[in-house]
Parts: sequence; C-alpha cells; structure tokens
Amino acid sequence: MKAAIVTIGDEILIGQVIDTNSAFISGELNKAGITVIRIISISDSKDEIFKALDDLRHETDIILMTGGLGPTNDDITKPALAEYFNRQLVLNQKALDHISEFFQQRKIKMNERNRNQAMVPENCRLVPNEYGTAMGLWFEYEKKHLIVMPGVPFEMKAMLTSHILPDLVKRHKLPAIVHRTVHTTGIAESVMADIISEWESNLPQNIKLAYLPSPGILRLRLSASGMGKMSLEHEVSLQVEKLGEILKTIIFGYDGATLEAVAGNLLKQSRKTVAVAESCTGGNIARLLTSVPGSSDYFKGGVVAYANDVKINLLGINKKSIEKHGAVSKPVVTQMAESIKNLMRTDYGIATSGIAGPDGGTREKPVGTVWIALACPDKTLAEIFSFGNYRETNIIRASAAALNMLRLSIIRSSQ
Amino acid sequence: MKAAIVTIGDEILIGQVIDTNSAFISGELNKAGITVIRIISISDSKDEIFKALDDLRHETDIILMTGGLGPTNDDITKPALAEYFNRQLVLNQKALDHISEFFQQRKIKMNERNRNQAMVPENCRLVPNEYGTAMGLWFEYEKKHLIVMPGVPFEMKAMLTSHILPDLVKRHKLPAIVHRTVHTTGIAESVMADIISEWESNLPQNIKLAYLPSPGILRLRLSASGMGKMSLEHEVSLQVEKLGEILKTIIFGYDGATLEAVAGNLLKQSRKTVAVAESCTGGNIARLLTSVPGSSDYFKGGVVAYANDVKINLLGINKKSIEKHGAVSKPVVTQMAESIKNLMRTDYGIATSGIAGPDGGTREKPVGTVWIALACPDKTLAEIFSFGNYRETNIIRASAAALNMLRLSIIRSSQ
Repeated sequence: MKAAIVTIGDEILIGQVIDTNSAFISGELNKAGITVIRIISISDSKDEIFKALDDLRHETDIILMTGGLGPTNDDITKPALAEYFNRQLVLNQKALDHISEFFQQRKIKMNERNRNQAMVPENCRLVPNEYGTAMGLWFEYEKKHLIVMPGVPFEMKAMLTSHILPDLVKRHKLPAIVHRTVHTTGIAESVMADIISEWESNLPQNIKLAYLPSPGILRLRLSASGMGKMSLEHEVSLQVEKLGEILKTIIFGYDGATLEAVAGNLLKQSRKTVAVAESCTGGNIARLLTSVPGSSDYFKGGVVAYANDVKINLLGINKKSIEKHGAVSKPVVTQMAESIKNLMRTDYGIATSGIAGPDGGTREKPVGTVWIALACPDKTLAEIFSFGNYRETNIIRASAAALNMLRLSIIRSSQ
Repeated sequence: MKAAIVTIGDEILIGQVIDTNSAFISGELNKAGITVIRIISISDSKDEIFKALDDLRHETDIILMTGGLGPTNDDITKPALAEYFNRQLVLNQKALDHISEFFQQRKIKMNERNRNQAMVPENCRLVPNEYGTAMGLWFEYEKKHLIVMPGVPFEMKAMLTSHILPDLVKRHKLPAIVHRTVHTTGIAESVMADIISEWESNLPQNIKLAYLPSPGILRLRLSASGMGKMSLEHEVSLQVEKLGEILKTIIFGYDGATLEAVAGNLLKQSRKTVAVAESCTGGNIARLLTSVPGSSDYFKGGVVAYANDVKINLLGINKKSIEKHGAVSKPVVTQMAESIKNLMRTDYGIATSGIAGPDGGTREKPVGTVWIALACPDKTLAEIFSFGNYRETNIIRASAAALNMLRLSIIRSSQ
C-alpha cells in the first residue's frame, strides 16, 4: 500500500516550527509495511488542501493528514474536508461527551470553542484522542482512506499507534519491509565508504544501503522489501553480521540505539556507576544520560562547573593548574574526572573542558578545542578533540565522544 | 516570488531522520520576502525527482532542493538533474581545487569518491561550500531557478545565507512579509483564545493570527504581507502592543526568544548570577542556560543530584527531610535551591525534584508531579506542578516552569 503524509500549517511553511510529526508517522507506517511515497507540507488554506487531495488521491491508498483540528479560528481543516467530500458538519454526542469529560477531569471550565470541536462531518468515523479534545477523522472513499489527526505530537502519536495502525493492519494484507540501521561513531562518511566498499559492492541487489551522517554519529541503513518477512530479515541480518566483522567496536548499536542508552546498559550489566563534571558541555551529558528511563540505576549525578571558582571550590581543582595550563587542558580535565568520581563515589567519572564558541578561542586553542577525560576504576584517560566552529554541534560532538570513551572503556575492561 | 522546497532522501520517508532543513530554508526565504507554497519530501529516485520538478516548475519561481550530493553511491541527485536538463557531467577544475584544498587542510587523504564530486553538469553555476566537499548547483531555466544544496545542515545553512539568498535578493524585487511572534508561557491554548478573543476579532483583515502550542510554551504569530514594509511593520507592532497590555508578563519574549535567553538577559542586566540543583530535569536546565552564548557571565554552574546520597552529601540536604517527606517534596526542593545558591555563591538558586516517569509514580504523587524551588536573594519560593505522563515533555515543561519562575522573580524584584 502506498501512503502520503500531508501536514497542514502556515507555521511550517514560514519555518517557525520543524515538522517532527511526519518523521514519526512515516516511521510507524513503514514498520507496518506501508510505503510512504511523499510528504507534503501546505498552508492553512482550503485551496491548498483541495489541491493536495486532488494530486494524491490517485497515487495513494492512504492519506494521513495532521493539523488544523484545534479550537481556534485558524483551524480550518474540518470545514475544508466537509466541503471537499460534500458532507454536513453535525454535532456528535460521543465527541461532546469526550470533550466534557476531558475538561471535568482537569477541573477546567469548558468554553464554546471546545464545544465546537464536537461538530464533525457526517458519515465520518471518529478516532479517539486520549490526550486532547480534538478527535481524529477517518474518511473512506473509493476503497481508500483519508485520516486526519491533530497536530499536537503526543496526541497524534497515541492516536496513530493505538487506533489507526492496528485498524489498518487488521484490514489489509501488507508486504514486508525490513530495515536495519547500524550506528557508528568516530568515522567520517567518505572514510567509511572506503572501509566498507568491498562489502558494499557485494551486497545482494535487493538490499539497498544508505549513509545517514549527523554530528558525531554516522548511521548505515540496509533496506529490503518483498513478501517473505522471515527470509528478508535473514538476508539483512547476514549482511549486518558481515559489517560487524569489518567495523567491530566502531559500531555502537542498532536501530535507533543511542550512545547514552548503550553506555547506560553496559554500566547496568557490569553493575558500575558514573558521574559527570561538565564545563563546555554545560549539562548536556547529564541530560543525555538521564533521558534514558531507569538511568537512576547507574547515574548518580553531576556537576556543571561552568565558572572557574566552581571548578576550584566544588571540585577541588588545583587553582595553580588552571592558572598555568588554562581550564581547557589535560591536567585540569583529568582532575575534574577524578574529583567527580570521588565526590559522587562512582566507578567512572566523565569530564569535559573546551571552547564551545562562538567566543573564547585563541590561536593555540581555537573554538572547537575540547579536552575529555574519563576516570576509570584503575586509571584515567584524557583525549583532545578539534570539533569545529559551531557551538551547538561542538556540544553534541563532545557529548558523543565522551559517552563513547565510557562505552569503549567498559567493553575493554570486561574483555 | 513563489518557492517550493524539495528534500531528497529515503531516510526522511521512512521516518529515520527529521527534516530540519526545510524549516530553516523556509524561515530564511520568508524573511527575504519569498513565499514558500509547498515543502515536499521524496525518495532518492530519479523518477520522483523528475515528477517533483514537473509538478513544481509551473507553480513556482524558485525550487530549492537538498540532499543526495554526497560522495557515496546512494547520492543520485546530480546525475538525475543532469539528465533532466539534458546536460553532460564534466570535470570542474574549480570544484576539484576546492575539494583538494579541503582535504589538505584537514590532513586527510582524498579518495576517488571525493574526486568524483568535482564532476558537475555543464552550464550550471557552482555555489561555494565553505564547510564541505559538495558544492551547490544553480540551474536557470525559463527565468526560473533550481538551486541544489547538500543535505548536511550546517553546510546548507552557510551556503543559503552567505551565497544564495544575497544573490536572489540582489536580482529580484521582493514584496514585504512581516511576521511577529509573541511567546507566552503558563496558559493553555483554549484559555488564551478566550482571554484575547475581543482583541482577535478586532484584528485588521490583513493581519492573520496563528496559535503555535508546544510543551510549556504557547506562541502567537501575527502575519501581514504587502508592498510597504514600513507600514506593515507599524500595523503589526500596534497590535502586538495591544496584546502586551492584555497579557503583560504572560509574554516572555518575541520572535524566537527563549526562556533561557530572556532569563539570562535579565540576570545580566541586573548583574545577578544563578546556579541550579536538578533532580528530575537531569541537567536540562543547565544545558538550556549554557546553550546561550555568553552565559558564563551569569551562570556559574549546577549540580545534577540524581541519587539521594548526592543530595545528602554534596548538597547537604537533611537526610531526615528526605525520609520524612520524600525527595519530591517542598522541604527537600527548598533546601536544594538554598544549598546550591550558597555552594556556588550566586544570587539565585533553582531546584527541581519530581517524578519524570515512566516509573516511580504513586497514588499520592503520580508521574508528572514536580516540585520547583527558587532561592532568591531575600526569600525562597516553592511551587508544585502536575505535568502529565510523558517523561520527555515533563522534563521540558519543568525546565520551562523553573526558568519562568526565575524570570518573574527578577522582574518583580526590579519593580
């Protein structure tokens, strides 16, 4: 089955919000064996909605639409679709009950705007919304589906995964699509292409390879599609295995794995704990580690030592070391890692000190220079990196490099 | 002038990456007075590229395309466009020099894949790429533009803002588009719609209003377009002023302002400093504060006290308070805020303690319960919040609420 996604909202076309909904929807459709052939963003305009439907209804079996179902005046999707399919808007008691209950639970008074959300096109199925007042709309025409969801991401996500997809899967026989993604760190795209070129050129014709670079991380995606899910999975697994033999620990995980979850899992398995002392990464490594549910098992805490006197007073860094070598130096970052490990009584201590930018760079230590140290149970490692000119990507790259140092150390110590 | 954006890449259609490029490009085009009428994402396929160009070339004056210019085998945009415009791929010496120089600077050996990147369609202008090896391609046809940029965000951003837009602006007379966005926090969308309903219904016809909700923050966007930039700006400013009189400090900023930058600026102006003690937000508030360039002027540091023994040993929280009231309680969060303020010798201390989820909730304190405290120079405030079931949005909302408490306190103290 072929699908298209249409996101409605001026805010997307003027670049005010990033359309994250499409990525989620296409990921979920894909897993279910539905191929997304196009994603389109259009403005809150009846004409644009009509044009998109005219264009897409012949090429696709399913159109998933988001946005414009809210209670305010710029929400025009519902009346536009009623007009397109030539249906009246009628009061739906089920929708009204849902909205009333929603407000009662939250002890908020319901207003006329919310009541209007219970007006829905006739002959249109309603899709429950557990987290908001705007219910989804499901139109069927010419054995095809047009499904409209609210634009608020967590409302849309619950609606899609709990109601829409289970229903679609039940009603249609879908082909298998198998993707596996191999996540690597520390290797540039063109270098990677050389390392794996022989493997790549020997890939079976039905397996497609894609390179997905992002700061600090390069992912390789293998895709295969057909009718036999088991055999596709087997074929792809075989290739992933071969790739593993070539890349070894350059691979840190598969299929959405993150460095923070992988490192966290290694800590959990080896019953070790970690703490962080961050200067240039400013709390980002702590945030990444704690973004993983259950991280309290191995992450004890951290210090963001942004000011030098915090480094001196709270972490007990030697003031003379800072004066002599600067805060961005091997001696200082080493002391930071060892100090946080002792202070928080953990097995590992991570420390970062660098020049994130845009200011603070010198000829000797340009913006992007970052020292990272890892205090291990038996020794302390320190490494210098040169990341580049962008504050944001410097912080992301330094965080990835630090988590990778932790990961590799735990792996080595268990060998 | 009308523009469309086409992003190429299977990874977008299978939901593996979020298309952030389109948001950036449309934002920049919009500022320059170019209207984006559609954003389309398609797969790495010649047929899809051809189809998109066939569809869009009649409706638009400019098509901006990203992706598929890299050195690897899945990068097919260049040969596809050469075929579409019926042009040969020829070696371009300028491009080859650029690539060679790029590798020399980084002391990396250039390989055949990189050399191939210097093959470009004839009669096609090259756009410099300061940060990568893939140069941009600029085709002109029927007095229209097709401009292709690499998909790597920071390469694309530099290319667009330093080369492509200045050139387009120089060559075309563009109409004015004026947007102003009013950022608010602490008010739900339907409540806001009621508060401002009278103002909204009295808006001049040429000014359009949009509600842009996100966790913890609701933005209101006013848009106007026409030929006289000055008068449009004046009209919109007038309305923003009226809105300010209604909403007062519910508004925290305008046009892309963030709570962390606004609170930071208030600290800077009043020569005050802040430190944070985070439990459930896990470093996110520190990360937000340090994401602002120049934040070292007012942010001294933080402690992420995830484990209770870190709260006790490092922050000196009374063990009995934790045993009696639990870590998620007013007495504990108050002590945390006061302790971090004293430890880091700052004027303000922020503390958070809550149940982010998915586990750890109880009947009395369900997931989403968060205590936030703010130690001020003269007193300490503490407030309890109930955010909801999502770990990720709980952390975002708690961080926004904490930064907002800081913002409001500084404003009040200066009145």
